[in-house]
Amino acid sequence: MYGSDFADILGCVRVKRPLIHHITNYVTVNDCANITLCAGGAPVMADAREEVEEMAAVSGALVLNIGTLNPTLIESMIIAGLSANKAKIPVILDPVGAGATRLRTESAQRLLDELEVAILKGNAGEIGVLAGAGGAVKGVDSDGLVGDPVNIARDFAKAEGITVVISGETDIVSDGTRTLLVGNGDPMMGIICGTGCMASSVVGTFAAVCDDPVMASAGALAAFGIAGEKAAERCSRPGAYKVALFDELAALDLPELEQYAIVKEA
Amino acid sequence: MYGSDFADILGCVRVKRPLIHHITNYVTVNDCANITLCAGGAPVMADAREEVEEMAAVSGALVLNIGTLNPTLIESMIIAGLSANKAKIPVILDPVGAGATRLRTESAQRLLDELEVAILKGNAGEIGVLAGAGGAVKGVDSDGLVGDPVNIARDFAKAEGITVVISGETDIVSDGTRTLLVGNGDPMMGIICGTGCMASSVVGTFAAVCDDPVMASAGALAAFGIAGEKAAERCSRPGAYKVALFDELAALDLPELEQYAIVKEA
Amino acid sequence: MYGSDFADILGCVRVKRPLIHHITNYVTVNDCANITLCAGGAPVMADAREEVEEMAAVSGALVLNIGTLNPTLIESMIIAGLSANKAKIPVILDPVGAGATRLRTESAQRLLDELEVAILKGNAGEIGVLAGAGGAVKGVDSDGLVGDPVNIARDFAKAEGITVVISGETDIVSDGTRTLLVGNGDPMMGIICGTGCMASSVVGTFAAVCDDPVMASAGALAAFGIAGEKAAERCSRPGAYKVALFDELAALDLPELEQYAIVKEA
Repeated sequence: MYGSDFADILGCVRVKRPLIHHITNYVTVNDCANITLCAGGAPVMADAREEVEEMAAVSGALVLNIGTLNPTLIESMIIAGLSANKAKIPVILDPVGAGATRLRTESAQRLLDELEVAILKGNAGEIGVLAGAGGAVKGVDSDGLVGDPVNIARDFAKAEGITVVISGETDIVSDGTRTLLVGNGDPMMGIICGTGCMASSVVGTFAAVCDDPVMASAGALAAFGIAGEKAAERCSRPGAYKVALFDELAALDLPELEQYAIVKEA
Repeated sequence: MYGSDFADILGCVRVKRPLIHHITNYVTVNDCANITLCAGGAPVMADAREEVEEMAAVSGALVLNIGTLNPTLIESMIIAGLSANKAKIPVILDPVGAGATRLRTESAQRLLDELEVAILKGNAGEIGVLAGAGGAVKGVDSDGLVGDPVNIARDFAKAEGITVVISGETDIVSDGTRTLLVGNGDPMMGIICGTGCMASSVVGTFAAVCDDPVMASAGALAAFGIAGEKAAERCSRPGAYKVALFDELAALDLPELEQYAIVKEA
Repeated sequence: MYGSDFADILGCVRVKRPLIHHITNYVTVNDCANITLCAGGAPVMADAREEVEEMAAVSGALVLNIGTLNPTLIESMIIAGLSANKAKIPVILDPVGAGATRLRTESAQRLLDELEVAILKGNAGEIGVLAGAGGAVKGVDSDGLVGDPVNIARDFAKAEGITVVISGETDIVSDGTRTLLVGNGDPMMGIICGTGCMASSVVGTFAAVCDDPVMASAGALAAFGIAGEKAAERCSRPGAYKVALFDELAALDLPELEQYAIVKEA
């Protein structure tokens, strides 16, 4: 029932080719740029405080990713985020490693406090930490979460007035009222670096053309997850799999997204 | 008629293996390093103000790319550029996103003003902005140019006393007197991130061994374009295409460059 | 005779999945993260002075790579290194380009002086420079070494009380008392950017689970070298070769490492 809506969003991405402003880490930045192109968007990476206000103002969405944060970068994220809020474009926050160090936890919290974040997307540990729900993070990987992730996503979304995405075997997307579960994806996505970051870029690309952050997030995760499934059908090793993941997202057509999306209400 | 000269330049690159000092963005830097190796050069990336003077002084060319600029990086570019000028090695400037933000436009202008740039290579929008000829840039992509690009390249090159390259379906290379049009390349080159940056690295590699910046630029663009064409013959998706692009440039031999180069005077 | 010990170390890596904290360059950082995953470790890249103490303290090894150093990054390396020393996890230093600029030489020297480095891994020129043994470095490539590299590695290791690795056609690993020569690897590894950095990441991953830095280094270099050999059997061009290199390391099983490791005492 959601598939045709997702296909409409993807179709819109490919027609409008929205500009997706990223302030992100230097580890997976190239992958984020390329996956944005594969989804149908136009990536731009710009992090200097002197230019981020301008760049965000002409973009379709702003993706903030704290994977290799530092205080200067966080300042740029604040400036860009305020500009995005003013321009009424969605801000997507990926709080990479929140919970692993104080800097990450506090920076993610500060971005949530000072900006109107539309979509917060992290793993179970990261979201659990930010929600005060007993998450644990080691490095940049989730190390567990106390409690039911669906409830945590729902309650935190309601409390913050945002959409919360918890990535995992089943992705959870909730705005506090409506909660969707996305069953697409493949364990192979975890054997390469950067799929979490890439997923956030795809979410940003979908959100740039769709006013409903729950549908944009779920559609993006379904699309990216289907690409991951199709890549896994033909590649079992990380190098080849990564190449295939880009190729499958680029080749994903609207009927396939409609047909293969596995999404239901919680 | 140009093909055999281009083959001579490529042959010289592969014998001399020139060191190509890059100060570039963190998005495509790995691609720039690898494409330099594929062309036959030896890449080195170094941007600390404390070391760029030394590094540029022992290099064969200096490639400056403002894709993820900030004021500190621009200072390093100035220091490196002055060192390159003193050492009489060519400076190649790729003004990524000039026109999209004031910082980019002003920084590119400053580099042109304070350094003896040998080759300025950008898309139509970027060059149009810098030439004061009504270019438009969105993110890092050209959003159009008022006027005839061949005239703009020629006039701007003459006014600045440099070689200007406007990349596009047909690449334009002009030093104000002589103008060459390079017809190689494939639309597939636009579906991946970084081909513009990579092209600048290949131009720098050719310019390191050839005193004629017009011939070095046109030869580099022909070689990279042929690699792009050959990759497109066997790959239609971005991930696989990118792998193939590196492979085809590395495998390009001198007779192929001579035979397939499509270059004529404007 | 060493093969079965190496297989034990690799087996331990894959069970324990150690967190490998990198402070490294922005050129090959993605490759380092992915090769760490392929080896069986969990990479984390974090360089802000505000967080590196915490991150190093929970990691299994710390890899310091000065490929794109600057004074701020070196300060973070010192903070992280002291934390690693306190936590008694091994510090691996890759002095990329030491000898090419004063900043690189002095920074590498400072890290050696102020930290308890477990393993110093560089090319012949870099190690020669740091050992005061007449090395030469151009860009980030060795430009030769006066004297016998085995003696230089052994003497420098003894003088510093560390394990020294000189990478090359035959890799030399010495703690001053015991010296191993690793014959694995393929010339193809030199046609892509980043294999030296990746090798350091694999060394760090092995060292995280093995108290013997000589065996950890030799085992890691054998494993990575075998992957390089197997990739070369099926790929002769750089783009495809790089993909295959990741895939072969990920697919390397314990019996293969035991069987194909070519290691002997000097």
